[in-house]
Amino acid sequence: MEARSTHRCFGGTQGYYRHSSTVIGLSMNFSVYQPPQAAEGRVPGLLYLAGLTCTEETFMIKAGAQRVAAELGMMLITCDTSPRETGNDGATGDWEFGEGAGFYLNATQDPWARHFRMYDYILQDLLPLIGAEFSLDRSRLGICGHSMGGHGALVLGLRNPDVFSSLSAFAPICAPSTCPWGEKALPRYLGGDRESWKEYDATELLRARGAQFDVIRVDQGEADPFLPAGQLQPEKLEAACAAAGQPLELHRHAGYDHGYFFISTFVAEHLRFHAGQQA
Amino acid sequence: MEARSTHRCFGGTQGYYRHSSTVIGLSMNFSVYQPPQAAEGRVPGLLYLAGLTCTEETFMIKAGAQRVAAELGMMLITCDTSPRETGNDGATGDWEFGEGAGFYLNATQDPWARHFRMYDYILQDLLPLIGAEFSLDRSRLGICGHSMGGHGALVLGLRNPDVFSSLSAFAPICAPSTCPWGEKALPRYLGGDRESWKEYDATELLRARGAQFDVIRVDQGEADPFLPAGQLQPEKLEAACAAAGQPLELHRHAGYDHGYFFISTFVAEHLRFHAGQQA
Repeated sequence: MEARSTHRCFGGTQGYYRHSSTVIGLSMNFSVYQPPQAAEGRVPGLLYLAGLTCTEETFMIKAGAQRVAAELGMMLITCDTSPRETGNDGATGDWEFGEGAGFYLNATQDPWARHFRMYDYILQDLLPLIGAEFSLDRSRLGICGHSMGGHGALVLGLRNPDVFSSLSAFAPICAPSTCPWGEKALPRYLGGDRESWKEYDATELLRARGAQFDVIRVDQGEADPFLPAGQLQPEKLEAACAAAGQPLELHRHAGYDHGYFFISTFVAEHLRFHAGQQA
Repeated sequence: MEARSTHRCFGGTQGYYRHSSTVIGLSMNFSVYQPPQAAEGRVPGLLYLAGLTCTEETFMIKAGAQRVAAELGMMLITCDTSPRETGNDGATGDWEFGEGAGFYLNATQDPWARHFRMYDYILQDLLPLIGAEFSLDRSRLGICGHSMGGHGALVLGLRNPDVFSSLSAFAPICAPSTCPWGEKALPRYLGGDRESWKEYDATELLRARGAQFDVIRVDQGEADPFLPAGQLQPEKLEAACAAAGQPLELHRHAGYDHGYFFISTFVAEHLRFHAGQQA
């Protein structure tokens, strides 16, 4: 692991790192905010997954979450949204697919099966590394994400409630099997058999596995342009949670859009939600 | 004035705008955060000037200031760090000079005298426009800035205490006449006569004009790499304030560097400082 840069922030340390990932087969960037309390012993944490076009830097720069993380003694962890410099034909130049658009899945189709394995990367490479190199209490680790990363958080959370103790999302892609972003990316990553998509679709996972958390929190801006575009479909998550008996706190916010000014407004509530679930 | 985009943020509105500037002779970008209280009537404000390489977006995206601005009912205003697309030979390609490096002065030397007039731009174009188009109470307007923008805030503030009711800075260039950045930029913008530089040097202005504010607040990270490089020289500001009888709160912070993780950590204290001075 190599520290690319570290910065004092709210009494803790904001760091950007690089490591060699066995799962991905390339070096990967990630970022950690260590709150001041991490100097005294292991602290709870929150893994945040970002959306299309973002990197491990986006949340750390734009969300303003470190203030509350320092107050709560919560470590913040972010990873990149895909492998980079993969050399795969068609991996760059389209913001909805390929690099920057890994959809937090394990691709099975050539050439994407090479490198595009963000799901296993997070569970098998990133989290063990964080546990070894930083003062994270892995028994109190929440997961959160935004848009494509909200989809990632829902999928990783619902499939791994033993790994993640709490789950929330901002404007998540709730049903990728039936939205334009998913219908474009999933066949290329996973092939045409829609059965194989179900393990990466939160509404399908709720149907198959039932309730996994005491409560899931989701915030959605009502002026989000991707809502009428059918990319997010929170109503499908709502219905799937209701059918599964999975309690859901779905907060709809008039006037808020899809961006980080929306996230920054409610990020403190998300961190406090995770701290409450982890207590 | 054209709104390029607006975003709901902490109950208020974060907006990016463009207008045609008479002083500059080009269109200019600026940004305003209107707190929720601005819907009810005129509110106090803070003009923030950014540093080298930054734009009107930097502070709004990275500082996390809107949360406290919403709480205090304080409007936030940022402008770009220079004119853009000036067409002047040598205006781009050097991060320390030209576009992105306007130094908040009125250039007198060709070709820079054309367009590079940020000092007059702020006073004669930007602030009147903000007063006309937004619910700003111009009698309660503070000024703040970072690095080159800290220099800009000190110079604009000390020369216009009738316009600005309070003054603070993060890691400002305190004595541009005697630092590498200034010694490179000032001759090209203002010519070789060092007398003409004095109107754009906070330490010289304090010497010539004496105390102008009840107190000035400055925060400086002790791990700032531009401190040993001699670019910032807070000790010269400290000495000039002492000689002028100008009260100065100079907060030095162990471990903090020059970037926005430093600024975000202390920005709430700056906003509260301005609110206190404006009360």
